[in-house]
Parts: sequence; C-alpha cells; structure tokens
Amino acid sequence: MQKCFQYLMYGRYTQELGVYAKVEAARLRDGEVRDGSGLRRNTSVRSRAADLLEYEKDPCAKCQVCASRCQKFLISRVGEDWIFLILLGLLMALVSWVMDYAIAFCQEAQKWMHGGLDSNLLLQYIAWVTYPVVLITFSAGFTQILAPQAVGSGIPEMKTILRGVVLKEYLTFKTFVAKVIGLTCALGSGMPLGKEGPFVHVASLCAALLSKFMAALFGGSYMNELRNTEMLSAACAVGVGCCFAAPIGGVLFSIEVTSTFFAVRNYWRGFFAATFSAFIFRVLAVLNQEEDTITALFKTRFRLDFPFDLQELPAFAILGVACGFGGALFVYLNRLIVECMRKQKTINKFLLRKRLVYPALVTLLVSTLTFPPGLGQFMAGQLTQHESLVALFDNRTWCRQGVAEEFDYISHHHAWKHPQVNLFITLILFIIMKFWMSAVATTMPVPCGAFMPVFLIGAGFGRLVGEIMAVMFPDGIQVDGTVYPIVPGGYAVVGAAALSGAVTHTVSTAVIVFELTGQISHILPVMIAVILANAVAQALQPSLYDSIIRIKKLPYLPELGMGHHEKYNIRVEDIMVRDVRYITLNSSYRDLQEMLLTGQLRTLALVESRDSMILLGSIERLQLQSLLSQQLGRQRRLEYLRQLDTTEVDDCMSPSEVRPAQTLDDQSKIIRSIILKGLFVCFWPLFPLQISEWEEQQLDEPVEFKNCKIDPAPFQLVEQTSLHKTHTIFSLLGLDHAYVTSMGRLVGVVSLKELRKAIEGSVTVTGVKVRPPLASFRDSGNSTNVSEVTELHKLCIRHRGLSINKFAWSNINDKHMQHECKNNCRTLTFLPNHLCKFVFNFC
Amino acid sequence: MQKCFQYLMYGRYTQELGVYAKVEAARLRDGEVRDGSGLRRNTSVRSRAADLLEYEKDPCAKCQVCASRCQKFLISRVGEDWIFLILLGLLMALVSWVMDYAIAFCQEAQKWMHGGLDSNLLLQYIAWVTYPVVLITFSAGFTQILAPQAVGSGIPEMKTILRGVVLKEYLTFKTFVAKVIGLTCALGSGMPLGKEGPFVHVASLCAALLSKFMAALFGGSYMNELRNTEMLSAACAVGVGCCFAAPIGGVLFSIEVTSTFFAVRNYWRGFFAATFSAFIFRVLAVLNQEEDTITALFKTRFRLDFPFDLQELPAFAILGVACGFGGALFVYLNRLIVECMRKQKTINKFLLRKRLVYPALVTLLVSTLTFPPGLGQFMAGQLTQHESLVALFDNRTWCRQGVAEEFDYISHHHAWKHPQVNLFITLILFIIMKFWMSAVATTMPVPCGAFMPVFLIGAGFGRLVGEIMAVMFPDGIQVDGTVYPIVPGGYAVVGAAALSGAVTHTVSTAVIVFELTGQISHILPVMIAVILANAVAQALQPSLYDSIIRIKKLPYLPELGMGHHEKYNIRVEDIMVRDVRYITLNSSYRDLQEMLLTGQLRTLALVESRDSMILLGSIERLQLQSLLSQQLGRQRRLEYLRQLDTTEVDDCMSPSEVRPAQTLDDQSKIIRSIILKGLFVCFWPLFPLQISEWEEQQLDEPVEFKNCKIDPAPFQLVEQTSLHKTHTIFSLLGLDHAYVTSMGRLVGVVSLKELRKAIEGSVTVTGVKVRPPLASFRDSGNSTNVSEVTELHKLCIRHRGLSINKFAWSNINDKHMQHECKNNCRTLTFLPNHLCKFVFNFC
Repeated sequence: MQKCFQYLMYGRYTQELGVYAKVEAARLRDGEVRDGSGLRRNTSVRSRAADLLEYEKDPCAKCQVCASRCQKFLISRVGEDWIFLILLGLLMALVSWVMDYAIAFCQEAQKWMHGGLDSNLLLQYIAWVTYPVVLITFSAGFTQILAPQAVGSGIPEMKTILRGVVLKEYLTFKTFVAKVIGLTCALGSGMPLGKEGPFVHVASLCAALLSKFMAALFGGSYMNELRNTEMLSAACAVGVGCCFAAPIGGVLFSIEVTSTFFAVRNYWRGFFAATFSAFIFRVLAVLNQEEDTITALFKTRFRLDFPFDLQELPAFAILGVACGFGGALFVYLNRLIVECMRKQKTINKFLLRKRLVYPALVTLLVSTLTFPPGLGQFMAGQLTQHESLVALFDNRTWCRQGVAEEFDYISHHHAWKHPQVNLFITLILFIIMKFWMSAVATTMPVPCGAFMPVFLIGAGFGRLVGEIMAVMFPDGIQVDGTVYPIVPGGYAVVGAAALSGAVTHTVSTAVIVFELTGQISHILPVMIAVILANAVAQALQPSLYDSIIRIKKLPYLPELGMGHHEKYNIRVEDIMVRDVRYITLNSSYRDLQEMLLTGQLRTLALVESRDSMILLGSIERLQLQSLLSQQLGRQRRLEYLRQLDTTEVDDCMSPSEVRPAQTLDDQSKIIRSIILKGLFVCFWPLFPLQISEWEEQQLDEPVEFKNCKIDPAPFQLVEQTSLHKTHTIFSLLGLDHAYVTSMGRLVGVVSLKELRKAIEGSVTVTGVKVRPPLASFRDSGNSTNVSEVTELHKLCIRHRGLSINKFAWSNINDKHMQHECKNNCRTLTFLPNHLCKFVFNFC
Repeated sequence: MQKCFQYLMYGRYTQELGVYAKVEAARLRDGEVRDGSGLRRNTSVRSRAADLLEYEKDPCAKCQVCASRCQKFLISRVGEDWIFLILLGLLMALVSWVMDYAIAFCQEAQKWMHGGLDSNLLLQYIAWVTYPVVLITFSAGFTQILAPQAVGSGIPEMKTILRGVVLKEYLTFKTFVAKVIGLTCALGSGMPLGKEGPFVHVASLCAALLSKFMAALFGGSYMNELRNTEMLSAACAVGVGCCFAAPIGGVLFSIEVTSTFFAVRNYWRGFFAATFSAFIFRVLAVLNQEEDTITALFKTRFRLDFPFDLQELPAFAILGVACGFGGALFVYLNRLIVECMRKQKTINKFLLRKRLVYPALVTLLVSTLTFPPGLGQFMAGQLTQHESLVALFDNRTWCRQGVAEEFDYISHHHAWKHPQVNLFITLILFIIMKFWMSAVATTMPVPCGAFMPVFLIGAGFGRLVGEIMAVMFPDGIQVDGTVYPIVPGGYAVVGAAALSGAVTHTVSTAVIVFELTGQISHILPVMIAVILANAVAQALQPSLYDSIIRIKKLPYLPELGMGHHEKYNIRVEDIMVRDVRYITLNSSYRDLQEMLLTGQLRTLALVESRDSMILLGSIERLQLQSLLSQQLGRQRRLEYLRQLDTTEVDDCMSPSEVRPAQTLDDQSKIIRSIILKGLFVCFWPLFPLQISEWEEQQLDEPVEFKNCKIDPAPFQLVEQTSLHKTHTIFSLLGLDHAYVTSMGRLVGVVSLKELRKAIEGSVTVTGVKVRPPLASFRDSGNSTNVSEVTELHKLCIRHRGLSINKFAWSNINDKHMQHECKNNCRTLTFLPNHLCKFVFNFC
C-alpha cells in the first residue's frame, strides 16, 4: 500500500495500478473508508473502485461493463428519487385531505350552531362570533407555544431557505405539528385566510422530515444536502399542487415564487411529485363518495363553442390593469398595518405582552361584520370561501332576468339575492369589505396565507365587471345571426387570476385557474389580464412574499432593477469588508480559541501567513471546534495522564510481554495505575493548577490541520468584479459569502449583507428606504486605495528592469477608465490609468 | 480636473466632490465619454452623474429625486423591452400566418391536381409524386445555396447559442430568408415534417434581426448583448407559442428544450411575447373569416361531466410507458439513419456530390407509399397532418357502431373507413408507416422539425389504444346508473402528448396539448402518461435535440448524470490544459504578433511575467489586433515620417511663429515636406528596406496596454475544484473557458471541450461512445504533479521557521484524503496528507 502510494505520488501510474486497484477495492468493500458525512458516498465509491478494478484487467472491452454498471447505478438512484417523491406525494395528499375534512367539519359545525339558534338573534350572534374567536385564539396560542416559526405563510421562509440560507428551526417536527393544527383551526374558523402558502411550508416540512426519516432508515443518498434542497423545491410544488389539485400550476407557481434561477433538471421532480399528489388527493375524494370521478375543484361549465368575442378583450384588459392596482394596494395595505402596529409603541408593548388579544380582536371585528342577519346579509356573509367561489364562477348571468328567478337551483342563492338591495351593491360591498378584512386577517399571528382570499376578491371583482358588461350589452355579441350572451363567470375567472397574480407577482396563476376550473377556453383573456396586472403591480410594489421577507428581516438578495447599468460602476472593493477574520497555517490553538470565542462566522478563511495572506481555503466553524476539543479533550487528558505514569504501567500492560505468572508487585502496579487513572479522569476539575498549566501548554501548540476538513476552493472574487457579476454569481450559486482576493492574497470578504446593502443603495423599490448611492467615481479612474497602491508597488519592484522611456507620460492622466458589461456579465475594463501611472511612478 | 483626480486618487473624497461632480456631469452631458460599445451606456451614465450632482447639494433630501429618477429610468427601460417584445410578437404572428396560408395553398394545389386527374391512375400518380419532389428539391437546393445553416430544426443550434456559444452565421438575414422559404416549401409538400423546431429558429432570427435594426435606429440598450440573449430566449417561446397558438406551453417547452438554468426574471418576457404573438396569430384567422372567434387550433369536444374514470388510469399509464419506448426508438432510428449514411463511404461520397438526390429519393419513396389509390388508402394517405389530427381527436368512438354510420359529417371520413380493411389494421399501418417515414424524412437537408409528425403518430397510437379499450369495455364505465362510454379521442390526446414528450424529453407537451385542444379535462391522464414516457425515454436515449447536437458536433455541455457522486473525484487539475497561451506585461509587439498568428483563441491570458505567472486578466483577440494595428498603422507611419522631417517643417508650420512675410525659402520648405509626405504615404510599399527596419524596431517595443480593454476578473478556478462544481459554474454562467490558478499563478485553462470530454468519459449515455474514465486515484490522496510539488516547495521555504518536531511523522502516509460535495456544490476536503508531507519534507 505504502509503496503503491509512492508510485502514484510521483506520477508513475502504470506499473502497479492493477494491484493497487484491487487492494483499494477490497479496502473499500470492507467499508474502511467513511467520509465526513458517514455512509453517504459509500456505494458510489465502492462501485467505482470495482469498475476500476475490472477496467484495469482489459481496458478496452471492459468499457461495456463499466457502462452497464453506471447505468444500473443511475437507474437505482432515480428509483430512490421516485420512491421519495411518491412517498412525499402520498403523505401530502393524505395530510391535505385530512385537513380539508377537518376544516369542512369545523365550518359545518359553525353553520349548524348558527342555524340551530335562529330563534334568538343575540344567542345566534354570540354563537357566530365565539366560535371563530375560540378557534383563532387557540390556533394563535398553540402555535405560539409549540413553534412560533409556524406563523404566517411560509413561502417567504422557503424562498430564503432555497436561496441557500439555513433556517433550521423552520423545518422541525414541532413546526410541522404547529402548522398543521394551527392552520386547520384558522381555516376552520371561516376567517378570510388561505391555505396555499402554509401548504407550501407543510409540504417542505414533510420533505425535510421524510428525508431525515429515510436517512435514519436507509442512510445513503438521503444524507446529501444538495439532494435535500432539490427535494425541498419539489416539495414546494407538491404543496401548491395538492392544495388546488393543480399540478402544473403548482410547479410553475412554486418556481416563480421561490427561485431566482431554476435548474431545469429539477423540473421533472416537481411535476412527478405534484401530479402524484394531486392524483391521490382527488382519488381520496372519489373513494369518499364526494365525487363521481376526478374532476377540477371549482369546475365551470362555460360554453365551448364561443367562449368570448374579440370585442370583449378591451374589457378583460381593463380588468387586468385594475387588478394590478388592486394587488399593489393590497400589498401596501398589508405592510402598512404591520408597520403601524410596530411603530405605535403603546400598541406594540400591549400586543407583545398579550399576544392572543390581537387575533381575538380582529376575529371579533371580522365575524361581527359578516354576521349574516347583520351586515353579512349584504355581502354573502354566511358563505364559505369555497361556496362563494363556486357561486362567482357560475356560468349564468345574474343581473339579466333578475337574480331571483334563475338562482333557485344553487344552494347558495339566498346569499346573493337580497330583496331590498341591488346585486351591484352587494358585489361592491363584498369586494371592499373582503379586501380590507383579508389584509388585516393575514397579519394575525396564525398559520395562514393570503392567496385564496385574494383569489376570491378577484373573482368578485371580475363578476362585477362581467355583470356590468352584461347590463351594457344586454343582447350579447351577435355573430352570423347567432346571439352569444356575455358570460360574467368568465370575467370572474379572469379577475381571480389577475388579482392573485398581481399580489404574488406571478404569471402562473393563469395556469392554476385553468386547472381549478377544468376549462382552458378563456386562455387569452386570462393571459392578457394576468400579464397586465403583473406589469402594473410590479411597477408599484414588491410582491407580497418579498414584502413579508423585508418585514421579517429575513436574509435575502434583492433583484437588480431592470436596465440599471449604472450599477456596474460599483465593484466588489467598494462593498467588501476589509477586516476579514482568518487563521494562518502557523496559528496556535490559542488563536483558534479566541477566534471561536469572539466571532460568530460559520466559516473562517485559512491563509498561509499573516504577511503573505495567500488564501489557502476555508474551514467550517464546526471543524475548528472539533480540532480544539481534540486538542483539549478527554482522550488527550488520558494520554497526558499515561505519560505521567507511563514507564510503570506500560511494563505491565503491554500484551506482547504477557508473562505466564505475574508477580504480586506487577499486579499492584496495574491496580495502582488504574485507580490513578480513574481518579484523574473523575476528579480532573480538582487539580486546577496542573490542568491550567497543561491547558496553557496545549493551547500554545500550533494547530495541526491534517485532520481537519478544508474547503480548498472557497468562492473567490477579485476587487474589480462588478456588482452585477457578483449579484449574478451569488444568486446563481446560492452563496452567502465570497472571499475577495488580489493575486491570491486575501483582501476582503463579501457577504449577502453587504451585497444587499449595495443593491438597495442603488435600486429604488417603492416602499423600501433608499440609501444614498455608493458613490464611487471610478468612471473617471480615480478611486485608489491603499492596498492597491502597495500591490502595485510590489508589482513595480519586479518590473524595475523594464525600460520606461517609451511611455508617453503626458497623456496618461486625462483619459478615463471605462467599463461595460458585455457577453455573459463579463466586465471589460480599460486598464486603469492610475495603475499605469503608479507603475511608472515607482519605476 | 487634474487636481480633482489627484484628490480623489489619494482617498480624499470629501473636499471638492461637489465641484468635481458638476464638472463630471457637464463633461458627460457633452458626450465626451463613449465607452467601448459606442452609445450603449451613455444615458445611464448621464442620469447617474446628474443624480450625483443633485445628491451632492443636499445628501438627505435628494434621495427622493434620485429615487424618482431611478424609477423613471426603470419604467422607460421596461417600456423599451415591451416595445421590442410587441414588435417581435407582431412580426412572428404575421410570418407564421403568411406561412400557414402559403402551406395551406400548396396542399390545396396538390389535392386539386390529384382530384382533377382521377380518370387516369398513372397521371394521377405522377402528379401526386412530382409535386412534393419538386417542392422538396427546391427547398433543399434553395437552402443549400443561400444558407446551409437553415437546414434542420434549429432548436439544437438555439440551445447552443443560449448556452453562450457564438454561432453568428445562424442568426443572419440570409438564414432567415432561406429558413422561411425552405420551410414553407417543405411543409407544403405534405411530407411528414414539422414546423415547430424551425419556428423557434425563425423567431430567434426575427429577434436577432429586429435587435440589429433597432440598434441601428435607436442605439441605446439594443446594443447590449446580455439583453439580446434575454430576447433570444423570449423569442424561442414566441416561436413555439405562435406555431401552436399555445403561449404557456410555448414558454415552458422553450425553457425545457433550450435552458439548463433558467432565470425566473426572464419568465415574463416569454409569456408576454408569446401571448401577444398567439393573440395576433389567432386574430388574423378571425379577421380572415376562418374562425368565428379565438379558439384552440385542434378544438376537442369531450364531455366535461365525466371525462374519464379512475379505472381507466392503468390504460393511460401503459400508453405512457409504450410511448416512452416508442420515443426512444424514434430518436435511435433517426440517429441510426444519419450514422449509416455517413459510414457508408460510397453512399456518403455520392450524396455529397449530388446533394439534391437524397431528399428527392426520400420524397419519392414516401409519396409513392402514401399514394391514396395505392397503399395510401389503408393509412389515410390523402389527409394532411392537420386533417389527420382533427380526425384522431374526434370525440366519438370509431369502432363501436362501425365507422361508416357515424362518420358522415366529417369531411375526412372516407380516409379511415375502408370497405375491406378493419379499422385497427388501418391505424396500425398508419402508425408504423408514419413512424419510419418521419424518422427518415427529418434527416433530409431541408428546414424541418420532428415534433408535429411525432405528435401525430402519438395521437394515432393513442386512438388505437382507445379503440381497443372501447372494444374491450363496450358498455363503458357505469357510475350511479349512468353509463359513460370510453372516449378514444381522449386517449389520442394523451398519446400525442406522451410520445412528443418522450422524443423531446419535455413535460410541457402536456400543457401544449391542453392549449391545442382547448380542453384541460384530461389533465391527470396526460400528466401521468407524459411523466412515465419521459422516465422511460430518458433512461434509454438522449432527447432528439441532444442527439442532433451530438451528430452535428456542436459545442455543448452534457448534463451530469443523476447521482453520479463518483464524478466528484475528478478535479479541474485532471482535465485542464497546462500549456496556456498568455502574454506578459513586458511582452513585445512581436510576441503579440506571433501569438495572433499561431493561435485561434478568442481571449488570451495576461500574466505579470513569465516567472511569476500571476494572472492579471484576460484580453480579447480583437483588442490585441487593434493594439498591433495601432502600433504599425498609418497614423504611426505618418508620425515616423514627420519625425524624419520634423525640424524644418515645424519651423515654418508653427502658428505661433507666423511671420508677416514668408521668404521663398520657407515656402519651398513647406512644399517640399508636403510632397515628401504624400510620396511617403502613397508609395510606402516602395521603400522596403526603410519600412522593414522601422517595422522591426516597432515590433521590438514592449506593448502599451493602457489603451486596451482588459477584463480584470476573468473566471478563475483552483486546481482542486471538483468536476461537479466546474460543471455547475460553466452551465450557470454560460462560460466557455476558465483559467485555473494556484495562489494567483496561472497554471492552466479549462474550456468547454475539456469539460465535455471529462464528463463523457464518466457519464454513460446509451448511444454515445464511452471513454475510459479519467482515473485519478485521488481518493487515496496519491495524485501529485510537478507543479504542486514546486508550489509546496515555495510554501515551505517561507515556513522554514516553523517548528516541526510536534508533527506525528509516523501516521501521515496511511491516511487518505477524502472529499465530498455538500451544501451548494461546495467541496470540502481533508487537507491532503501528501501536502502535509511535502511541507515537512522540505522543511
């Protein structure tokens, strides 16, 4: 073995390769090698070694063997992914279905109470109000106690996690329980809350827990974190997919909402899991006799022959633009409420002390206003979200022959036909009340989303526009003698997609409505409205999820504004932190200890020496901690102890010197040493002087890095890297920090924080504070810092031999450096004139 | 100005900043600054300078001004994008519609000829055969002469271009003309060819040409290449979108087919352009009285209430799996045909000489076999692709009450009901014949795609399965007393999506069929079948487009196989090219000339000196060429001339010394010098000796890099970077090469070629030759090369002072280096033991 290493080390690969491969393969087969993460790479290493072995026997013919092995391995791995995704889909479908069942039960219970008490209005009111208040308070309290991370939508957190930031507490079993139970109660209360955002979180929790479970059970590839991230992004798709039984829309929505750059190779995972999950979810409904077969959740029955006329498109476009403004307003309102409550110190203090008061108050207010015999009668207050949506997507026109006549066969007809009040007033009241109620309700500290309420408001607004159109064109559109009346239900579908698209800044809500309604006939109006709504909303406000990310101060990377070319003027050297924490090859354990005690960084840079500063790699904090504990740990202490008593004990204990008959003296020595050892280990803290002396001595030793995992290729940038390039690299690779080097020397570090500051300083997003732009006047070639000067000085010393009389000195200063971003974010720069200048000044 | 620079240069930013900013702003306003690409960054620089100016006046209050300016700028830029996308959509819709019109006309003409000659079978046959042969031959010839790049689908090329590889000749006006006319003729011939792939190419051509046009007209941001790439990816979506009037499917399909990593921020561009284009495309049909309103292209009328039963799902799954095998077979067959023809040297030679013979022969064969009175009568030979699809998607069952009775009201009924032959035999014959015909036809050197033929075959196969199901379950599925018969049309839709998905390795064909048929009711069966088909096909063969990329030997980057963790064992140092071409800071122009003459690289590395090898940046070839021509150009020659005659002329010409009366002698001097100058410039080549001497002298001068654009941050990797990480970085950033540095020193370069070789050496894709794996036994920490040794030697010299007696020498050699890929592709490595060893060996 030793010999073999020697051969290979000096580049003589050929001679004993076969022998070496065999030995290596045998060694691997015996499982000698365990890498850092335990079992993970064992199979692959093994198969590769075996391949090598066989390949060595007959280099040409064995390619086939190698190939078939590779293929088998590939298939087995894919199979594993499949199993995981199927399990995930199954689990989520079950969770989703059980939750739906529980929520429906809760809502039925409220209706039953409300219906049973109709003799006494006061009793009825108390029952109507108490029920949601109790549920919401329980939900808030339960979540607060068990896992406060379960509060809210979960999409902002998932976006941050998929961005590469570790938020471990968001993916625990406690959070799962809190989220599922809290969400069921919150939705069961009948408040205007959604389940789509929390479902994304629940699905991710499922995936994370399932990964852990599978890793514990089978080990292997389930330990791979890269793989787990891929599974998380599939889980997001599953969440949306089985919430709406909309696999395609779910995948697209989750991509749009959580990713910046999407790896197309993960695409099939999302589709597979979401489809399977949606399938099981609907199959459960069929098996439970709720449905005859698998159909859409909110099936519409618009006519297929002539869904809409070309002349109706302007109305759809106006609806889209209006929804865009509405969506921006919703996001603004939502943020305003949160910020108001935070700024008002007295309110804030009170709410912090009595956390359950706020949700209870909000619930009381909302349920009072929707009380059906009260104001609720003018806004279909007694309908659940599901019932309202079904009614709004109805394919008949409500206003034409009066609502009363046509509505008889829908069970919810009494909700929309009020004897005294016009249909339009009901609709307008419905939209306005639901709008602010949803904005307020989604700020409650319970697990809840805002998608569904917004979707409902959009549907209501669309229905309103549709009914207005139906009144304006009572004869409908006439084509070739056939009269096609206007379908207000189609407008409701368009409005729902447009408003939810505007709030979330997504286009895929269009696909979600097709899957929800089971009809794609309105594709063009929906697409036009959604795109217009997005254009308007994106110009005015960040998306709801980005807004929450900012409110919650989660680590994130803002998008670069479109076409902001001036940002290319900022370079890494303007934003980097120059005071980097590092350890050197000759650091002592004491330096390590200090570093660990004073800083909180997850990784530390390893440089060659304090003078050269050449970056060798980076080491994780955990690795350093283990190095330190190795040096000062129990094992070492025992060794120290043994050293103290070494000569005597070793004589007796050494197995090679076992003598047939041991003398009494020997035995007493052994016993004495054992007692001494035990005493020393047990009462270690009782020998303060000796210990501290030993510890000090240990700490002064230089660190032995050989047992430590070092990342030899941490991400490096150079000082001149433009902000645009840095942003692209950070978001593509999901980095959270990168070292800045200048000719191999470590000069700084850039983390997400600095980058965010730099971008926010130069990008203006309405509603976000604008910092003064990082004014770097490099465009004129003037920025020079100390490090660059010394760098150049060094460069020049080397170049003293260069003849410099040929350089035109006169026209160096008045030219300026220019740069541009071209071809794949590569920055080209005129060689800085001041660099030239310095070079020749020094020479 | 000069003073201002001085201040800024030494870090005193505060004092004269206001003054400086004003001067700077004025300078910028006068347009002094033009960066490399001309006008591109002018506006942005201007607005920023103005912002700075105002910001300087009142740092706090002016944030608002800055913000509003930024916003305005943002909106104006988005506006520009919109305009471009609208124009692109409009253009493509028009092109698409005109082409469809021309194709329909061609097909009508053939039918008319065929119908008019039914008295004489021979004449009819000749007419039936000649027409497509002439069209295809013309198409092949025209394309060959005008632009051979227009041949084939275009998707593989677009994939390569979007990957970052410049294939300029694929985006010229000539190619556009050749593609449009060639495609129209090819499709007009009625051969089994598709238009979807070429449409992607046509749309990209449109976008590229439109970009050029807009850049010439308006300049500004249209010059930005990054932006152009974004527009190209939108154009791909437009191509698919307006080919099928399927905007959503178009966007998704183009993403899946052309991207590896997709930037979600480009999403809306695709959607916007594709929707607009699809809208205009359908509006043109309405305006032309072809349609009453905007509807789907292949509208189906399946029942909505109960589209399919749960018990039918296994049949759909089997259909999907079968389609997966079929798809893989199609790709294999297609490649086999091309490879056969290439290998057969006699055939190959003949075909190369007579390029038009092959397409003519294939067309003759195919059209003979589909001749309606001949074999064509058993396989619906007289129907066009469009008619066949409409028939196959029919919502009635063909086999149940006999085809004859029910088929009367479709115009194509006679095609499928043959008096003597069973419907099943017709369908099977149709599938088999179309299968190989399509595979052969798509190898012809004409602009053509394979999507539509495959789609049609899939629909036929689905219909077959559906009809078999209908025979097996003649009573359909009974639920609650209502009998729902089986809908074979639904199976046809599922089959079409599954087979086209299998051939192209995409899931989005599911969305395309929903948009094509206007019905989404079969969403679950379609998704299940498409996913299963993909799983099977991906395990067996590369996608059709990847297969073509390999056949055409386009530069590409293969995907890393799933779960191939053993590939992490290969590092950059194993695959890099060590013989890098570089120039140094003290290179002479002669070195530059040699470098330019001998190499063909697009960029060259700039290192500090031959000894230090410290990488300073990279320079584009064009820049070096311009440097060289500056040194030896006309301007310099004139200067040289002036120097020769300098004293005499300057005396007379100097304006400060204009004397009232010039002597005759002075005048003669001036005239003499002018004549001399003129002679010298005109007859420069006549003074060979003097010139060569001067040139030699010029070439020996060291290069002045100050007027040269240098990329100060070319992409760098370290030797230890794993293959997986390299692959990710290359595909994410679209690099085509990266330098490998070791502590700032240039040690190698990796290009796409090396990476491809490395990956193909270790990944096995069936049908692609497997190279022996790059066996690097680093797993055992043994690979050491010369450069590493010298590197470490240097390191050690610096560390001589380090006390080394504390290192345990004994157990260094028998430990091994292990590495793993964790957390965002970061590689962690045990510090190589041989490194430790070398360090201390040398000390």
